[in-house]
Amino acid sequence: MKRKGILVIVSGFSGAGKGTLMKRLMEMHGEQYALSVSMTTRQPRPGEQEGISYFFVDTETFEKTIGENGLIEYASYCDNYYGTPRKYVEDMLEQGKDVILEIEIQGALKVKEQYPDALLLFVMAPSAEELKRRLVGRGTETEEVIRKRLIRASEEAEGIPAYDAVVINDDLDTCTEELHQMIRSAHYAVSRNLSFIDTMQNELKELAKGE
Amino acid sequence: MKRKGILVIVSGFSGAGKGTLMKRLMEMHGEQYALSVSMTTRQPRPGEQEGISYFFVDTETFEKTIGENGLIEYASYCDNYYGTPRKYVEDMLEQGKDVILEIEIQGALKVKEQYPDALLLFVMAPSAEELKRRLVGRGTETEEVIRKRLIRASEEAEGIPAYDAVVINDDLDTCTEELHQMIRSAHYAVSRNLSFIDTMQNELKELAKGE
Repeated sequence: MKRKGILVIVSGFSGAGKGTLMKRLMEMHGEQYALSVSMTTRQPRPGEQEGISYFFVDTETFEKTIGENGLIEYASYCDNYYGTPRKYVEDMLEQGKDVILEIEIQGALKVKEQYPDALLLFVMAPSAEELKRRLVGRGTETEEVIRKRLIRASEEAEGIPAYDAVVINDDLDTCTEELHQMIRSAHYAVSRNLSFIDTMQNELKELAKGE
Repeated sequence: MKRKGILVIVSGFSGAGKGTLMKRLMEMHGEQYALSVSMTTRQPRPGEQEGISYFFVDTETFEKTIGENGLIEYASYCDNYYGTPRKYVEDMLEQGKDVILEIEIQGALKVKEQYPDALLLFVMAPSAEELKRRLVGRGTETEEVIRKRLIRASEEAEGIPAYDAVVINDDLDTCTEELHQMIRSAHYAVSRNLSFIDTMQNELKELAKGE
């Protein structure tokens, strides 16, 4: 069975530990995955690396890439563009890597339209209370900031039913392993094996007719 | 997250090694699974055990059970009834066990109507040629018998698109582990966590309103 990669979209609450989870997944099973790198027009922050954190480009280049259909999805946020370059994603999928895209729901839905086989995962804390503890727990934020985060989380939660599966981030290593197994298992979905099934059906029909 | 069991339907080609696979799954992860035992009106064969191989009953008892809606699905085959008792399945699901039902496609579709959350898995050989080798490989059958099996397999193959996922039975231990992970992963499907998600949404709404 020729195995193409799956495009995996990971969204989740701010504060649910997505970043740490992705890092751990790459440490433990990096040979199977490729992390998509976004293109942006915003300025690099200290410590960010070109081609790893982001591809940093100017507005003209970004808009040219949009015009060439070179982005799977893009959005503008605080006067800056952010987008997912198509070529890297498709090259990696073709090589059999599962490509991980860490984006928000609006982008996720745009990607799903173009890649109906994409697997949409939503990272959650084990409970709302635990999520709040994590948001508050940093200890440095005002009540107003915490309130804003909770409002945002509440809005994000409304989008969960559009996803395929939830990832409960309780213990990091357990969660990483579950995430990995979820993606592995997704390779066996009937919807992702239609041509293998079709071949099997045709070969059996031939064999049943007699040789 | 309160975890109810999943009803897992396993179908597959005769000759794809379903029986061996189920046995291995129970050996390796028996604490997580319950194998459903069918009720039948046919006579026990040597070595078959009441309550393990089948529940052996007379026709009157079987028909009474049908009348009481005590079977999830049933069919008659060679003048005998075969069916799946509902109570055992529901008790085990309630206890959090994943219940495995080894039945054919017609039964699988009937079960799916009543249990839309059921996970439908189809066990395949790695290729049509390999399936044929396995059917022929027993070495004792006439060409006519082999032909009949291939015709049957060809008919069975037409039903695969109704399933959720395929299980490729190449190496037994690998396949058992994949099957186990597939079922584990299915617990995280959004469709199987609607009440958890709903609770999370409501709690976040409350928290966002302020305490």
